[in-house]
Amino acid sequence: MKVSELSRRTGVRVPLIKYYLREGMLPPGRATAANQADYGEDHVRRLRLIRTLIGTRGLSAGATKEILDAITAGQEDLHQVLGIVLGVRPAKGAEPEPAPDPDENPEGLAEARSLIGAMGWDVSPGNPATRTLAEVLTALDHLGAGVDWHSLLPYARLADAMAELDLRQLDGGGDPLAQAERAVLVTVLLEPALLALRRLAQEDKSSRLFGGAPADGTDKAWPDL
Amino acid sequence: MKVSELSRRTGVRVPLIKYYLREGMLPPGRATAANQADYGEDHVRRLRLIRTLIGTRGLSAGATKEILDAITAGQEDLHQVLGIVLGVRPAKGAEPEPAPDPDENPEGLAEARSLIGAMGWDVSPGNPATRTLAEVLTALDHLGAGVDWHSLLPYARLADAMAELDLRQLDGGGDPLAQAERAVLVTVLLEPALLALRRLAQEDKSSRLFGGAPADGTDKAWPDL
Repeated sequence: MKVSELSRRTGVRVPLIKYYLREGMLPPGRATAANQADYGEDHVRRLRLIRTLIGTRGLSAGATKEILDAITAGQEDLHQVLGIVLGVRPAKGAEPEPAPDPDENPEGLAEARSLIGAMGWDVSPGNPATRTLAEVLTALDHLGAGVDWHSLLPYARLADAMAELDLRQLDGGGDPLAQAERAVLVTVLLEPALLALRRLAQEDKSSRLFGGAPADGTDKAWPDL
Repeated sequence: MKVSELSRRTGVRVPLIKYYLREGMLPPGRATAANQADYGEDHVRRLRLIRTLIGTRGLSAGATKEILDAITAGQEDLHQVLGIVLGVRPAKGAEPEPAPDPDENPEGLAEARSLIGAMGWDVSPGNPATRTLAEVLTALDHLGAGVDWHSLLPYARLADAMAELDLRQLDGGGDPLAQAERAVLVTVLLEPALLALRRLAQEDKSSRLFGGAPADGTDKAWPDL
């Protein structure tokens, strides 16, 4: 198909398609004339992936390009693609993420590492999720909410079950490119869906526990717990 | 304590504390002289909550004020506090969130409602999480990832178990203010922690399934699945 048709199919304006081609985020089409090229279904799929990563997840064009490069690098790189998406492995030419400075947030990091240890998780020292976990544990501690890493253990077990599901999604056949794309989707795109599912379930539980049909606007008393 | 001490204890600069006082986000201290007031531990706790909501979650001052107002409104409002945090119930004086326009994203909304129905969740038509879920389902569909609402059912069951845990965290005793604060924390502040836990578990599973010690930088071949 021509670039105009590719634009129509994907809803991406032609100048933006040309930008993605120049940046190497979209592979060139098959040249049919001096200034014309023919694009296929792979281009449609790739453009939709680019728009999803940038649009839904707010990734920069640069970060999106790194992920796409890793996907394109080939079939032996699923672990590496996941590593880049998770922020654990550097993309080609980038510096590896340093492990957090132990002086940075020593109590929070110690709590996060206790939780990781209790789960028996084998993770890189530089996995940025460790730092995020440490920050939340510190914030909870400062607020005196009575929540420490032990309280998060049941959540960690559920997160572990989710990760098992995630990795099982990758076993869906298809060519290596399709499998690697799915790794990105499962890792990145499902995050807002999981938070949305939790919020829906919270409303359901809150409505059952604390009373009041959720939609009718009446508030019942908060029962003794 | 004086406002300077409150500033030192919480790391919030005095002009910002005065702003929160003017906006009613922080209750006034006990007046001790014409231009002086005495602040207590409640102020410390409240300031930390404000900083956590704004800093960790990127909430606007306005959204934070709504949540604080709902918390202050009293002990009969736990369901309402949760509803406001979840975006389901309007804060005082605000318009209720409209249910999504059925023309907006009919296939995505139908899929999201199928999933909600299959879970038996009793949720408001205007719960914004329904729209988020519909958007993700649409994005997955456009990408041809072979993921539809049926694939999300196992995730929805895990999210349901998380929400059970969440609501159980509220049953921690303490005064009504403390309980309502905890409702906010559990709902809002745990979100980044849950995503971090899932990413850590993903790295662990990826390392086990797809090979390569995660930290040593070597890539092993991607085994047949």
